[in-house]
Formats: sequence, structure tokens, C-alpha cells
Amino acid sequence: MTLPPPITLITDFGLTGPYVASMKGVILGISPQSAIVDITHAIQPQNIQQAAFVLDAVLPYFPAGTIHVVVVDPGVGSERRPIAVFTERACFVGPDNGVFSRVYRDENVRDIRHLRNPDYHLPAVSYTFHGRDIFAPVAAHLAAGVSPSVLGPTIADPVTIPFPTPEQLPDGSIRGQIIYADAFGNLISNIPRQWLDSRTDWTFEIAETAITGLSVTYSDVQPGDFVALGGSAGLVEIAQRNGSAARHLNVDAGETLIVRPAS
Amino acid sequence: MTLPPPITLITDFGLTGPYVASMKGVILGISPQSAIVDITHAIQPQNIQQAAFVLDAVLPYFPAGTIHVVVVDPGVGSERRPIAVFTERACFVGPDNGVFSRVYRDENVRDIRHLRNPDYHLPAVSYTFHGRDIFAPVAAHLAAGVSPSVLGPTIADPVTIPFPTPEQLPDGSIRGQIIYADAFGNLISNIPRQWLDSRTDWTFEIAETAITGLSVTYSDVQPGDFVALGGSAGLVEIAQRNGSAARHLNVDAGETLIVRPAS
Amino acid sequence: MTLPPPITLITDFGLTGPYVASMKGVILGISPQSAIVDITHAIQPQNIQQAAFVLDAVLPYFPAGTIHVVVVDPGVGSERRPIAVFTERACFVGPDNGVFSRVYRDENVRDIRHLRNPDYHLPAVSYTFHGRDIFAPVAAHLAAGVSPSVLGPTIADPVTIPFPTPEQLPDGSIRGQIIYADAFGNLISNIPRQWLDSRTDWTFEIAETAITGLSVTYSDVQPGDFVALGGSAGLVEIAQRNGSAARHLNVDAGETLIVRPAS
Repeated sequence: MTLPPPITLITDFGLTGPYVASMKGVILGISPQSAIVDITHAIQPQNIQQAAFVLDAVLPYFPAGTIHVVVVDPGVGSERRPIAVFTERACFVGPDNGVFSRVYRDENVRDIRHLRNPDYHLPAVSYTFHGRDIFAPVAAHLAAGVSPSVLGPTIADPVTIPFPTPEQLPDGSIRGQIIYADAFGNLISNIPRQWLDSRTDWTFEIAETAITGLSVTYSDVQPGDFVALGGSAGLVEIAQRNGSAARHLNVDAGETLIVRPAS
Repeated sequence: MTLPPPITLITDFGLTGPYVASMKGVILGISPQSAIVDITHAIQPQNIQQAAFVLDAVLPYFPAGTIHVVVVDPGVGSERRPIAVFTERACFVGPDNGVFSRVYRDENVRDIRHLRNPDYHLPAVSYTFHGRDIFAPVAAHLAAGVSPSVLGPTIADPVTIPFPTPEQLPDGSIRGQIIYADAFGNLISNIPRQWLDSRTDWTFEIAETAITGLSVTYSDVQPGDFVALGGSAGLVEIAQRNGSAARHLNVDAGETLIVRPAS
Repeated sequence: MTLPPPITLITDFGLTGPYVASMKGVILGISPQSAIVDITHAIQPQNIQQAAFVLDAVLPYFPAGTIHVVVVDPGVGSERRPIAVFTERACFVGPDNGVFSRVYRDENVRDIRHLRNPDYHLPAVSYTFHGRDIFAPVAAHLAAGVSPSVLGPTIADPVTIPFPTPEQLPDGSIRGQIIYADAFGNLISNIPRQWLDSRTDWTFEIAETAITGLSVTYSDVQPGDFVALGGSAGLVEIAQRNGSAARHLNVDAGETLIVRPAS
């Protein structure tokens, strides 16, 4: 007996209502042994960028073959296509609205299918809840062993959205931005830790505050002090020891971070 | 090897404390292979109507035989009976306080048992937490194959509570009410979509706002505009595209919705 | 086929970001059949006392052999040791910062291991997220059958933190304190219910409010009234029927509770 792969869920549905559970009921009806893992249901409503970042952050930690379902879907019921993306590492099911753009950039994509075959949807598909009516049943059928080829035709032109990218400035500085503020108020930037070599001191400028030196962990500074470090996602992170950098700097995703070498 | 049926949980316990997890520990000790699905733990404290609505909304999407545990239980420790309800579709475990009234109305009820047999409860039953001490172990024993008949005597007089029902007015209008505001701020009414035929235009009046026309999906209107549509639960829903109708109309469950035919 | 034991998670990570899900992905990659149970991820940031209380409250309800992972870890990346604690009842994985002090006090501890063997960690261990890089893989390897002895050397000097303990006063009163306010606003004290015999009336004094008599359940008093009772954790609890005692008394963990015998 082989266990089916896990199915993960990322949505902006919250956990107060029936939406997420309806999807899980559908999945269990088709693939009863699938482990269902909630990544998060607290994506800001319709924030495709945030969903793409969270998916990117968890991806390396799931076993090969995991099926990731993302339902952040402002265009539900319109012409946007429902799709499934197959890479060497995993499978992704959701709307063709760019939420998988980081996957296309970072992974070896083998196939993308337009989910047009109603045999793998619920019998009645609503106009407002494809998570339950299309994405959950397709994910469960894939977990149960259905071949991608039956789901619908291959497409070659998935929608992509641009991501803010950091840039090297002529004076040796790096200009990036905060892309995520976590529950502790730690500010995660888009600047890879590897861009900063260890031969120089660096100064981190954000919201009229300057932090000197790249630290290794939070406890390298005194309680209450701000700290810059290479975070657990491999990205430069601004934090406050025993506090919330987001709140105390009054900063959210989108804020500019400048990293300057020692002069 | 047959997998036991899933066990779902609806409570007003929140997710910050030990209550929900204690129930899960009890279930896993008795039926280790049961998939446990959180429907929601964010029911407003003691809001039996809300729990009944959420249960009703997810019910059709779970596999036959699923065991649904509902613990919204203001009368815990009083004379109210702990019960299990068996229908053609599923099994329901919880307090006899009316939370299963929609089940009695909509499903073919085969049996209702008063959970009086302490052999299927925890050894020490507290006066304040029957979710952990009675409902969780009974649900797990049922999942593990125990017969309903051993749980206690059949009862024929379960408590029911009334639900707000929509009404047809003499002038052809329909008067209903909002029964649920979801995490997006979409306002779900108790008016079935099927009551509105497609041969006429309709106007939707709520909180001194009028919306003209029944739409198919959110993107049928411009961002920021209000929209009336048949929602994913088969009920008329008032929403705001890319916004929260609940917040912008300042409306919650209980608000009146009038639907008028074109004059 | 034997099912592996459940793995539970207590963290202060919240459910909005990628952290909890990354841990689950790691676990499923090593022990795909483990049931993973979220106890709570809403521990107040870095509140070790609160995590220790919640762990203590759920512990008796999980099956023997359950593996409890606690990641409330302000000292991550510093010299604090990652440990696994083995008792007759269960196994505990987390930082050596005192969060398991109640376990040392209440259980028969068989062994404590310093998790120094990198073979059971992720290949790259970050300085800021040992939950994902050390604790999750160690817990999963234990669930999959690895022997504690390979994880690292035994230690005999785990960090302990003091807990507020109730005291008997010369006049027959008991002075305790509130140790937890739950999602309903019920105030759970550290005074065991058994300390109060049933031969006398008691008066409960908290925040300039006095409650007369020990009740059995919430519905022993009128809606809106305050009530003192023996709660589901075996501790004296102050509640408000159909209301929040925490909010209406403006009280949180740390508040003094005096219980006086009838004069």
C-alpha cells in the first residue's frame, strides 16, 4: 500500500467559515488517505504576491510529489483559466493569475494543463468557488493517481506577474524591499543573504533607521535593539529582539531597504 | 484494512488554548487512523445559529459516514442532553440544544441516541467540558465501529430552534435576511437562488442601498461596486468587488434583504 | 503495519506565515504517516510560561508515546541547547529554556538528550529557525523509530523555570493567581479544586470583586453573573456566564486570587 502524496492549501479564506472545510471534505471523498496540510488561510484578501511568497518559502521543505493548492483568486468565474502545473519537485493547482510565477522562474516545469475536463470537477461548478468545485477535486484525483494528461489540454502561455527584485547600485550598495512581515513583526526582504560577503561591514537603512553590522541571530543584540541578519529563508531580515520591527519601525511589505558597505 | 470515517469539529473554543487539542488527543487515543478536520473553531461564543449554518454549508461536501462533532454548548453541565444523531448521510455528535435543527429539517433521520452510557465517555466527566469528556470519545468510538445502540437510549423529542425563513410578499417581492457574513465581508442571505427566475430583473435592497440586477460572479461589476449573485451555497449573496460589503454597508447577520422584481 | 505516534506542535509562530507549514513538510518527508496535531500556534511571543501551561493541560489526553514539539524559543541561535525529553508517558522536543519544567516536576523522566547529532537535523541548520531545522526532523525520526541514544549525549542539568504556586495562609485562606485566560475570557487559576473541601462555603476575591460559593457549572448562576468553579483542568476557575470574566474584571494572567473559607 503506497500512501498518496500530501495536499497543501494556501487561501485567503480565513478559518471562520465553511470554505476551507468544504475543500477538505471534497478531497477526503476522493483521496481519503491524503494528509492535508494548511499552509495558511490568512493571505491578505486577493494578495497574489503574498501567496506566491509563502508558497516559495515552504516549497523546499515538502516531500517530492506534494500537491500544492493555491486559491487566491480575485478573477474566479471570469475568463481566467484553472490550471495545474507539474515540475520535477511538485504539482501546483490553482488559478492562472500569476500566483505560480515564482515556480515558473525557479523550477523545471514539465507541463501545464488547462483544467477543462469536467469529469474531474464536482458535478455542479459554481461561479464563485472554484477552490471547492475544481481545484480540490483535481488535486485529490492527482493524489489518487490520475494522469495529468486527462485533466485538459497543455498550455504554453501561463500568466506571470513581476516580482520586486533587488539591485546592485554603482556605489556598491544594494537596494531591495521588504516583501513580507511575519507574525513576530520580522521584516523579510528580497535581498539574498549571499549577496553580502563577510569581508566588510554593512549598514542597513530602513524607514530613517540605520542598523550597523550583519548579525547571525536575534540574541546577538540587546533586547529592544534592531538587528539585521540572514533569515531562515536565506534572505536579509530586519528584526527587533523581543519586539516587533514592523510595529516599531511602522513598516510593511513594500518598504525600501538599502544595504551599504562600510565606507 | 478499512479506513475509519473522518471526524470533523465545529466549536466556539478558538485556537489559542488547550481545548480543541485535548479533544483531538482523546480521538487519536481511540481511533488513531481517523482524519480529523477542523471545520471552524471561530463560531461566535455560544452562537448556536451560526454553528448550525456552517454545519449545513459543509455537509454536502463530506463523504458518506463522516462524523460531525459540534460543541457550541452554553448549557454544558445542566440538564441538556448529550446526543448523537444518525442520518442516511452522516452522524452528528453534540449537545441537544437545537444546533442540529437544520439536520432534522433536511435529512432523513434514522436514530437519535441520548449519550448516557459512561463506558464510552472518559472515566472522569467534568461539568464544563463535555466536548473532551463525552463528545470526542463517543465520536471516536463510532469511528472505530461501535454500534449506536450501545451509546444510550433512543430519544424522539430532540430540541429544535427556529431559523429565519424568507417569505414571498404579495407584490412579488421576497423578504429575507442575512444569515452569515464571511471573512471577505460577503453577506450570505437565506433566500435560495432558485427563488429568483431569470425572466425578470431584480433589485436588491439592503441597508438603504439598492443593487440592480442579479450577477453571475464578482467580476461582473467594477472594483468597489456592490454586486448581488447566487453564491456557492446556493443562496443569494451581497458582495463588494475587491472589498467588504459587511464593512462598507455596516451590516451583519440579521439584517433584512428585500428582493424586488422589475416594475 | 504499526502507525507511528502522533506529533503535536506548540509554537508562537501564528498561522499567517510559512513557519508552521515548513515544520509539517519536514515531518511528512521523514514520517509520512504521522498524524500532526496543532495544539496552538497562538502562544504569546516568547511566553514560555504560557506554553508550559498549555502543554500541561493537553498532556493527559494524548495517547502514550505521543511526541510533543514545543517551539517557543527566544534564545534560538544562542548557546541554549536543543533537547529531547523522554518520560513514561511521552516524548518532548524543543529548546532547553525551561518550557518543559512542568514535565520534570510531574512526570517520571527517563532520559534527556542534547540534540547534537547533525545526522538527524536538516542538512543546513539556520541560526533562527531550529523548529524547522532541528526539532521537526528529530521528532519525525523518533516517530519513525530512531533510538533516543543516537540523537546526542544524555544531560542531567536541564534548565527549569519557577511556576507560581498557591499557598495556604494562616487564617485558612488560599492565595493563588490566574495563570491563563482562555478564549471565552474564563480565568484559570493555579489553585487545585481539591484544595477546597465541600464542608464549607468559600468566597473568591479577585480584582475587588467577591464571588460567594463554589459552583459546579456555568449555568448554576444567572446570565451575566460571575461564577467560581472547578474547571476542566482540575483548577479553580473564575468565569462569567455568557460573558468574558477577563474583560469584565479587566484581568489577565498574573492577577491574585484569594479564596476565603466561610467565617
